[in-house]
Amino acid sequence: MTIDKVCSVCPATIFAGGAASGRVLEVDRWLLRTLLKGVGAPAITAALWDGKDAVTGEAASFRMIVRNRGALLRLFSNPLLHFGDDFSAGNIEIEGELVPFLETVYRAMAGPVGLRRHRKPLADWSRKKVNSLRNSRDNIHHHYDIGNDFYRLWLDSEMLYTCAYFPQPELSIEAAQIAKMELVCRKLGLKGGERVIEAGCGWGGLARYMAKRYGAKVRAFNISAEQLAYARQRAKEEGIEGVEYVEDDYRNITGECDAFVSVGMLEHVGTDNYAALGEVVNRTLSETGLGLIHSIGQDVAEPLSGWLEKRIFPGSYTPTIREMMAIFEPRGFSVLDVENLRLHYAKTLEHWLQRFERHADQVAQMFDDSFVRAWRLYLCGSIANFTTGSLQLYQVLFSRRGNNRVPWTRSQFIDPRGDHGKL
Amino acid sequence: MTIDKVCSVCPATIFAGGAASGRVLEVDRWLLRTLLKGVGAPAITAALWDGKDAVTGEAASFRMIVRNRGALLRLFSNPLLHFGDDFSAGNIEIEGELVPFLETVYRAMAGPVGLRRHRKPLADWSRKKVNSLRNSRDNIHHHYDIGNDFYRLWLDSEMLYTCAYFPQPELSIEAAQIAKMELVCRKLGLKGGERVIEAGCGWGGLARYMAKRYGAKVRAFNISAEQLAYARQRAKEEGIEGVEYVEDDYRNITGECDAFVSVGMLEHVGTDNYAALGEVVNRTLSETGLGLIHSIGQDVAEPLSGWLEKRIFPGSYTPTIREMMAIFEPRGFSVLDVENLRLHYAKTLEHWLQRFERHADQVAQMFDDSFVRAWRLYLCGSIANFTTGSLQLYQVLFSRRGNNRVPWTRSQFIDPRGDHGKL
Repeated sequence: MTIDKVCSVCPATIFAGGAASGRVLEVDRWLLRTLLKGVGAPAITAALWDGKDAVTGEAASFRMIVRNRGALLRLFSNPLLHFGDDFSAGNIEIEGELVPFLETVYRAMAGPVGLRRHRKPLADWSRKKVNSLRNSRDNIHHHYDIGNDFYRLWLDSEMLYTCAYFPQPELSIEAAQIAKMELVCRKLGLKGGERVIEAGCGWGGLARYMAKRYGAKVRAFNISAEQLAYARQRAKEEGIEGVEYVEDDYRNITGECDAFVSVGMLEHVGTDNYAALGEVVNRTLSETGLGLIHSIGQDVAEPLSGWLEKRIFPGSYTPTIREMMAIFEPRGFSVLDVENLRLHYAKTLEHWLQRFERHADQVAQMFDDSFVRAWRLYLCGSIANFTTGSLQLYQVLFSRRGNNRVPWTRSQFIDPRGDHGKL
Repeated sequence: MTIDKVCSVCPATIFAGGAASGRVLEVDRWLLRTLLKGVGAPAITAALWDGKDAVTGEAASFRMIVRNRGALLRLFSNPLLHFGDDFSAGNIEIEGELVPFLETVYRAMAGPVGLRRHRKPLADWSRKKVNSLRNSRDNIHHHYDIGNDFYRLWLDSEMLYTCAYFPQPELSIEAAQIAKMELVCRKLGLKGGERVIEAGCGWGGLARYMAKRYGAKVRAFNISAEQLAYARQRAKEEGIEGVEYVEDDYRNITGECDAFVSVGMLEHVGTDNYAALGEVVNRTLSETGLGLIHSIGQDVAEPLSGWLEKRIFPGSYTPTIREMMAIFEPRGFSVLDVENLRLHYAKTLEHWLQRFERHADQVAQMFDDSFVRAWRLYLCGSIANFTTGSLQLYQVLFSRRGNNRVPWTRSQFIDPRGDHGKL
């Protein structure tokens, strides 16, 4: 695991020791059994570094091998953090397919209510970091500035790194990302010449689409320098007018717009800042304007799993619908429509994973093998989170209170051209 | 105002004195001016019992006349309760159309945030009554048992007393109510032979529709004896099998279902009982079942206006989306879809008002003039509440966590036959 090579702001040191652990003791086996019971006794087989199965799951299609005592002890102390780290470091291996293995574990952990409750970490140091302007920059840099060349290997040609929309499940990822952008524009009832503010624009794909297909005038905000450099370059190459990419935090957005849109930024905002985000919308949205916020969410309020929050998305949190209302209610915004696209995100991630695996050798050369394993775990784990329902994807459409220029029905959300895939 | 004639459980006494008030004093005019300032200075003209305008609104299309000092004092002490009572008693009259008058007042009261905040009653006695099993019966009896003959005068032929759905705004109320039932069935993905539990079935229209059109097996619960008598009679006349109407509280529902549906009951449940309702769903819904709750709601958590809660819907409360989540989150239900049909309820009410006015003489004979005025105010006020956005209408579709047999897209919600209006 070499996150430290990738990003110097990550404060954690990784004890990924792989030294020989001597012979397996009875206490080692007890630790492994206790650990698996603690996470809900998933139907898996588990072995230690002697290669012998210490736990045999009923009809298990998967086998987990813990390669040394260090990994076992770490796993026992905080499985949600250290499974990821030690899997990445090669201290834990999985025989069998990774996604169904993770689904099996997640389902066992979820139990009848509340996922991730059965096995709390011994120390939960990952909570309650407020995303200040400075922290936000560091957090975003951590994930999004590791190289456009890397993301280009496995994202679609428009570089959309958010849930796609598959009107037909068999669509390509390219077509499904365009269908998603079209869906967003249709929900917003976007018309030519309208002013759009986009908070968190990634590599700028939605802003380009709105300008090209709808003739909208978009001001798109982002604090990732690498993403913005790419976005500006593409807009220039394609001769797109009507998009201004601004390197600034969403909290500093001013001006007026007819549509406020944010796709995949809320996960990085943190609940403490939802009222501030609502205030940004309140000072920018016109009287008859519409807004749309698209975010990963969850059914029940629980922290992101330790590893994901620590290694992949520092400062992130995926809200419940109840929590999201803190954006809207204080300013009296009216929620018009909520769509949950959970299974569309699982499918999106399957496309990304396939492409990622096709380029795994290249990724290993760009970084190293532990980076490949970490990213594989992140993609597979995310698929399993969406298929088992521990994550959701919400699109929330809203307006100011009493705005009667809202969509009469959802019929305008449907693309009658059905030409998903053409930009 | 003769609510007491209608329902003996209503605890309030109505001081609707109409005796002569002597000449108008300067203090009377001061009270009226202060009152109107307190509710946000709506653009209306207002006069006292001498017929002279004491307040002149700019370009006002409406004139409110307070006929005596008793009404003025009551209005000053708690306008949200006593406007309704004294309007009903004939102590307050409105010149001009009632709906736009009320819209003007509601918009003034709403201000930039929070409706109904500018003018709190001096004593807010309407809050925090818990809806016990016994109270619920009394409250439901108050509104729904005042006579099927009365409701038959102005509801559609299926006797649906909830928001209709108008795929085309020009649909008849008959067609729009059928379109609403069809929409509900489609969201639930209802199939022949499936078991449905309906909590709060009104006069039984949706249960009949599900049985007739979908071949579903419906157990429909209600605590209004009058409504159930009607529902059973109609099912018998139409020879409908597959519907069982049960006179019982939603909290007593047992058994298993493939679809759980509740249309227009949540308003009577009260937030204190949302967890109990969630528990009812939890013990009845099958693993792959879907649920739908349809309810009046609001953007911002505020009590129902005093008069409405006291005279029309005792024990009622219209929740925010955030508050509704208390049904779903504790049991880990997953919200799939939220649709806000606010303007469809305004249109539904316009149809009801038209029919009501056509039968006003008949209603006056059944009850009296003050009942007609009270009901007119309730219907007009409700229209204004929906058009100004102080009320919303939410349809929430949900499933158990991680249920992957959920609608892939919303395309199944659309009726391709487009034959709204045929049962």
